[in-house]
Amino acid sequence: MRPNDRAAEQVRPITITRNYTAYAEGSVLVEFGNTKVLCNATVEENVPRWLKGKGKGWVTAEYGMLPRSTHSRMRREAASGKQGGRTMEIQRLIARSLRAVVDLESMGEIMVTVDCDVIQADGGTRTAAISGASVAMADAFAHLVKKGSLKANPMKSHVAAVSVGILGENIFCDLEYVEDSAADTDMNVVMTEDGRMIEIQGTAEGEPFCHEELMALLESAKNGIAEIVTAQKAALED
Amino acid sequence: MRPNDRAAEQVRPITITRNYTAYAEGSVLVEFGNTKVLCNATVEENVPRWLKGKGKGWVTAEYGMLPRSTHSRMRREAASGKQGGRTMEIQRLIARSLRAVVDLESMGEIMVTVDCDVIQADGGTRTAAISGASVAMADAFAHLVKKGSLKANPMKSHVAAVSVGILGENIFCDLEYVEDSAADTDMNVVMTEDGRMIEIQGTAEGEPFCHEELMALLESAKNGIAEIVTAQKAALED
Amino acid sequence: MRPNDRAAEQVRPITITRNYTAYAEGSVLVEFGNTKVLCNATVEENVPRWLKGKGKGWVTAEYGMLPRSTHSRMRREAASGKQGGRTMEIQRLIARSLRAVVDLESMGEIMVTVDCDVIQADGGTRTAAISGASVAMADAFAHLVKKGSLKANPMKSHVAAVSVGILGENIFCDLEYVEDSAADTDMNVVMTEDGRMIEIQGTAEGEPFCHEELMALLESAKNGIAEIVTAQKAALED
Amino acid sequence: MRPNDRAAEQVRPITITRNYTAYAEGSVLVEFGNTKVLCNATVEENVPRWLKGKGKGWVTAEYGMLPRSTHSRMRREAASGKQGGRTMEIQRLIARSLRAVVDLESMGEIMVTVDCDVIQADGGTRTAAISGASVAMADAFAHLVKKGSLKANPMKSHVAAVSVGILGENIFCDLEYVEDSAADTDMNVVMTEDGRMIEIQGTAEGEPFCHEELMALLESAKNGIAEIVTAQKAALED
Amino acid sequence: MRPNDRAAEQVRPITITRNYTAYAEGSVLVEFGNTKVLCNATVEENVPRWLKGKGKGWVTAEYGMLPRSTHSRMRREAASGKQGGRTMEIQRLIARSLRAVVDLESMGEIMVTVDCDVIQADGGTRTAAISGASVAMADAFAHLVKKGSLKANPMKSHVAAVSVGILGENIFCDLEYVEDSAADTDMNVVMTEDGRMIEIQGTAEGEPFCHEELMALLESAKNGIAEIVTAQKAALED
Amino acid sequence: MRPNDRAAEQVRPITITRNYTAYAEGSVLVEFGNTKVLCNATVEENVPRWLKGKGKGWVTAEYGMLPRSTHSRMRREAASGKQGGRTMEIQRLIARSLRAVVDLESMGEIMVTVDCDVIQADGGTRTAAISGASVAMADAFAHLVKKGSLKANPMKSHVAAVSVGILGENIFCDLEYVEDSAADTDMNVVMTEDGRMIEIQGTAEGEPFCHEELMALLESAKNGIAEIVTAQKAALED
Repeated sequence: MRPNDRAAEQVRPITITRNYTAYAEGSVLVEFGNTKVLCNATVEENVPRWLKGKGKGWVTAEYGMLPRSTHSRMRREAASGKQGGRTMEIQRLIARSLRAVVDLESMGEIMVTVDCDVIQADGGTRTAAISGASVAMADAFAHLVKKGSLKANPMKSHVAAVSVGILGENIFCDLEYVEDSAADTDMNVVMTEDGRMIEIQGTAEGEPFCHEELMALLESAKNGIAEIVTAQKAALED
Repeated sequence: MRPNDRAAEQVRPITITRNYTAYAEGSVLVEFGNTKVLCNATVEENVPRWLKGKGKGWVTAEYGMLPRSTHSRMRREAASGKQGGRTMEIQRLIARSLRAVVDLESMGEIMVTVDCDVIQADGGTRTAAISGASVAMADAFAHLVKKGSLKANPMKSHVAAVSVGILGENIFCDLEYVEDSAADTDMNVVMTEDGRMIEIQGTAEGEPFCHEELMALLESAKNGIAEIVTAQKAALED
Repeated sequence: MRPNDRAAEQVRPITITRNYTAYAEGSVLVEFGNTKVLCNATVEENVPRWLKGKGKGWVTAEYGMLPRSTHSRMRREAASGKQGGRTMEIQRLIARSLRAVVDLESMGEIMVTVDCDVIQADGGTRTAAISGASVAMADAFAHLVKKGSLKANPMKSHVAAVSVGILGENIFCDLEYVEDSAADTDMNVVMTEDGRMIEIQGTAEGEPFCHEELMALLESAKNGIAEIVTAQKAALED
Repeated sequence: MRPNDRAAEQVRPITITRNYTAYAEGSVLVEFGNTKVLCNATVEENVPRWLKGKGKGWVTAEYGMLPRSTHSRMRREAASGKQGGRTMEIQRLIARSLRAVVDLESMGEIMVTVDCDVIQADGGTRTAAISGASVAMADAFAHLVKKGSLKANPMKSHVAAVSVGILGENIFCDLEYVEDSAADTDMNVVMTEDGRMIEIQGTAEGEPFCHEELMALLESAKNGIAEIVTAQKAALED
Repeated sequence: MRPNDRAAEQVRPITITRNYTAYAEGSVLVEFGNTKVLCNATVEENVPRWLKGKGKGWVTAEYGMLPRSTHSRMRREAASGKQGGRTMEIQRLIARSLRAVVDLESMGEIMVTVDCDVIQADGGTRTAAISGASVAMADAFAHLVKKGSLKANPMKSHVAAVSVGILGENIFCDLEYVEDSAADTDMNVVMTEDGRMIEIQGTAEGEPFCHEELMALLESAKNGIAEIVTAQKAALED
Repeated sequence: MRPNDRAAEQVRPITITRNYTAYAEGSVLVEFGNTKVLCNATVEENVPRWLKGKGKGWVTAEYGMLPRSTHSRMRREAASGKQGGRTMEIQRLIARSLRAVVDLESMGEIMVTVDCDVIQADGGTRTAAISGASVAMADAFAHLVKKGSLKANPMKSHVAAVSVGILGENIFCDLEYVEDSAADTDMNVVMTEDGRMIEIQGTAEGEPFCHEELMALLESAKNGIAEIVTAQKAALED
C-alpha cells in the first residue's frame, strides 16, 4: 500500500555518513530513503552579542534547500533576497531541538552552528535534518574534547525526529513526499534517546484529528524514533 | 500562586469587542487579561495568482506587534526591512488555523485576510489572535452573506486556541508573560468548537516532557478552549 | 455643507486618552473624529551613535498605519520590506515637530521615541499624531522627573498641528478624508502653544494658491490649533 | 555679510545649460552658484499601471546625490540598499511641483520622468532641481510636439523654487550650505511663473517663527523666484 | 613542490558523476581533487519575459557556496539578504560560457538553468562548475531529445574551464586553494572542445604580468582543458 | 567603416578634465568620445574593519550609471534596492586595477575610494572609468603628500584600460556602443604605463576566438593604452 511495500510503521532505510565534507568540525550526510540532507557543524569561539560575558555557550542552526532538490526547481533564496517563512520556521525548530539536549552552561563561550542543506527532498527534510544534525554536533563536541577545549561532551542525549501522519484510516511513520501531500494530518515529533518529548508539531491539513488519533500518531513516532536513535548510535560507533 | 490568584486551570478574563474599527468587514479587539490584539478581517474579490480560475477561495493572515506593545520597545519590522522568523511562524499558524474551519470550495474566488496586530502583549498573543480572528472572520463572512455575495457562511466551526504550560509540577492554562518565560514546557493548542484538534505545538524549553505531562496539558487546553468558544459564541450573539 | 454639519472653521471632536497601553512611559490614544492614532513614548537611556558623549538628548518618532486602518486594505510595510516615501516623510515631520519644543541640552543622554500607529484613518493622521505625541512625550518626561532621572521637564511648550484646506471657495479646518481628497490646496501647520510656527507645509493639489488664500489658511489653522492645545492641557490635568 | 558679498535678497548666479547630455529628451545642467544639478527628462509611452486606460499622462521625478557631491563622502544609496527618507521626501516634492504645472489630461498615456542628480551640493539642491527640471520637462514636451506625438505643449506655466531663511535678524534668499546649516528657519517655496504658490515648506530649526517673519520670507522668495523664471525663459529662448 | 607531488602542468584527479540527484534533468557532481561542485540542470518551458515570442531559447546559471564548503564558515547569502559581488560575477561567467556553445535559435522557447552549488571548496570552484555544468546541460538536452521536445541537441561543443597561475617563476595548472592564495597572477580560461577561447580572465594579484607569461599561461590552460574535455567525453559515454 | 571615419586602431578623442567638482580630493571628468565618466577620489583616514591595526592602506571603487546616461532610461539602482551583477563586476574590476599600481604598505591606514559615475554612456564606460580614476587617485595622493600626510606618492605607475573587439574580420580599438553590440569578441585590457598587464577579460559573444585573434587584440590594446597613458600624463602636467 505504501511505495516500495513499506509497512505503515516502517521507517525508510537510514544512512548516516560521517566526515562527508573535509572542513567542518562535524559533517554528516543523512539519508532517509530519497531524502538527503548535508549537516555541517561549525565551531566558533565567540557567542552572539547578547550572550557575551555570561560564560555560556550557544547552539544554532540554519536550513536551506538546493534549488533543484525538489521535483520542480525552487527559486534560490539568496537570489530572491530573503529566507521564506517555511525556512525560518524549520531552522528555528532544528536549533531548539539541538539546544534541548545540550548543557549550554558547561560549554563556555563557544557557539556551534549546524547548517542543514537539503541535497534531495522526498519528504521529512526537517526531521532528517534534526536527526543528522545531532550526529554532526556530537562530532563537533568530540573534536572540542579531543583538542582540549572542553573537558566533557555537553550533550545530554541524542536527539532524533520523525514525521507521522494520518492517511485515510492509516497511521504512517516517516512520510515520503507523495504521502505527505496526501495526509490529512501531519505531525513532526522530536524526542530524546529515552523517548521523552522535546517538540511536537501536529497540523490537521484536512479534517481535525481526535484524541485517539493523536495517541496513535505519538506511538508510531516513538517507535520510529527508537530506530533512528539506533542508527545514530551505530554511526557514532564506527 | 499565579498572579491575581488565578487557579491553574483558569483562563484569564476574556473580552471580545466586535466592530472595533469602522472599515474592516470584520473587526474585533480581543483581550485575554492584559493581552490585547486587534483582528481586522478584509474581504477582497481576488485570490492569489496560483489559485486563479479554480473557483476556490482563500483565507490568510498577517501578524505584527506594535513596537511598544511589550515591556521594552521592539524594533519596528517595517523599519528593519523584514519580518522576523517568529512573526512569520505565527502568521502561518494563524492562517492554517483559520483555513481549517472554512470550506474554501464554497467561497468562490474570494480572499479573506485577517490582520492581527498586537496592541499590548502579556503572553499568549498568537492564541488570542486565533481566537479573535475566528470572530472577525465570522463577521466578514456574515457581511458577504448579507450583501448576497455568498449564499451561506462557509465556516464549519469556530476555531479557538490557548497556551498551556508546565511550571515546576503544575499544569497552567493560558500563560501570561511571566509564566511563559518561566515554563519548562509551553504548548499551543488550536481546536474546533467540538474539541477536535487543528494544531498542537509543544516545546520543551527546559526538561523534555513525558507522555503523562502531555496528556495533562491537552486536558487543560481542552477545558480552556471550551471557555473561549463560549465567549466567542456570546460575542457573536450580541 | 461639511459632513455632520460641521462649520468651516470647526475642528472635529477631540478625545485624548492617556495611559492607553500599560508599558510605554507615555501612552496616548488621540481621536479627531474617526481618525484614531495610538502614540506611545518610549524612554531609553542611550542616544544614537553620532550623539554619544555630547551630554545631549534626542527625540525621534516613527509612524505606521495598520493595514486596515483605511477603507481598502493597504499592504503591510513590514511585509513589503520597506517603509514608503509617505511614511518616511511623515515620521520625519513628527520628529522635527517634537524636537522643536524640547530643550535637548538639558535632557542628558536620554532618547525618547514616539511611535505613532494609526488605528483608524479618516484624514489628518499626521497632525493628530503630532498633537497626541506631544501629550505622550509630556507623560514620558513627567515619568523621568518623578523617578528622579531629570530635574525638570525639558519641554518648552506643547506642540499641536492641524490640516487646513481650500475646497472651492471655502477654507476648511481639520479636513476629514473626503474633504482632503477633494481639496485644491491642503496645508499642514504645526505650532507651539502660543501660536508661533514650527512647520508649515502647503501643497496645491489642483490650482496654485495666492497670498490671500494662504493668509486665510493660516488664520484658520491658528484657531484650530488653539482648540487642540486646550484639549491637550485638559487631558494633562486629569 | 553673506559669502561673496551677496546681498540678503540676492539669488546666486544662475546658469542653465540645455542639451547637457545627448540622449535624454530634455537635459539640463542647472547651477546656482556652486550647486550643480543634472536634470534629465525621459519620455516613455506607457504610464504606471494604476493609470492605464484612463487616457491621461503622468509626470514623476527621482532625485539622487553623487556620493562625493558633498564635503565629505556620503554612502551610495544603491550600495546601502535603499533610498533614505530625505531622498524620498525631495523626489516626491519635485514630482508634485512639476505635475502642478502640467495638464495631465491633455498628455495622453505618456509618462515623463525627470531624474535630478546632484553633481555638486552647496545648499538648495531641491529648489535648483525643481527649477532645472522645469526647463528639461519643457524641452521634452517640445520634442513630443515637434515629432507630432502631442498637438500642444501641456505645460501651463514654468515652475521655479527657491529656499529662504532666517539667520539672526536677517531674511536671506537662496541659502548656500553654510547659511542653511546656521539658519533658524528654512523655507522652500515653489511658485508658478506668475507668482502663485504650488508648495511652501517652512521649518523652524531653532526658534519657532512668527507671522511677520513668514511674510518677510514669502516676499523674499517671491522676488527670488521671479529672477529664476527670467533665467528659465532666457534659457529656453536660446 | 606542489601539494601531493603534482607536476606544474598537471590537473588534479577529475571525477564526474552523472545522475547524482534524482529530479534534475541533468545532475552532475564534479570533483577536481578536493573541490566538489554539484551542477543541476533544470529545463523549463518558458523563457525570460524579454525573450518571449521570439522563438528562441535561453541558458542561464546560478552559483552558491554551502556555508561550510570553506575552511571557516561563510555567512549564508540567503540569510544576509543578497548575493555578493563575487557570486554574481561567477554565475554570470558560467552562464555566458554555457551559452557560447549552444545554438539558442534551435532550442525553441525553452530555458535551461544550471545551478552550481559548491559542496567543498579547494580552489577552482568556478572552473569546475563550468566543466561540470557542460555535462549536466548535455544530459538535460539529451533528455529533451529523448522525449521528443527537441529534434537535435543544440550543443555545438563541450565547454571546459581551468585556472592557471604564476607562482614565483612557475606556471601552475588547476590551482588549489593554497596555490591560488599565493599566486601573483591568476587566470581563468574557458574553451571549446577544439581549444578555441570563450572567455579569458586574467588578474595580476601581485606584480603585473608580461606577454611571455601570458603565452605560457594560455599554453598551460590549453593542455589542462584538453584533459578535462577527455574526462567530460568519458563521463558522457558511460 | 567605423563611425566618424575612425581607423580600426584609433582611440576616440580623449579629454581629461581635472578638478571637475570642488570637494573631492581628486575629481576628474574623463571623456572618450561620447562616453563621459566622473571619477571622484575620496580620502578617508580609516580603513575597512578587517584591515585595522595592520598599518596598511586600502583603495576601493564604486561604479554607477545615471539613469539616463543611456539611450533608453535604466532603472535607478538605489530605487530597485540593489546593485546589479554588472555594476558589482565593474566596480570590483576598477578597484583591483587601481590597487595593482599602489603600494598599499606605504600608505598607512588611509583609504581612497574612487566613485566612477557615468554621465553619458557610449561604450567603454569601465575602461574610461579606470583610465580616469587613475588620474583622480593621483591627485588625491598628491593632495596627501602636499598636506604632509604622506611622504611620497604610493602610486607605482599609471593604470589605463581600453576595450578591443573583433567585428567580422576586423580588430577595432576602443569600441563605441554600436560596435560593442555587434562585436563577436569583446576584450577589456588593463595595463601599467610600461605595457605590462594587470587584467585581461575577453569574452566571445558570438564565435569563440583563436590564438591569432587574441594576439591581434592584445597588440591593438597595447597601442591604444599607450595613447591613453600619454593623455593621462599630459593632464597631470597641466
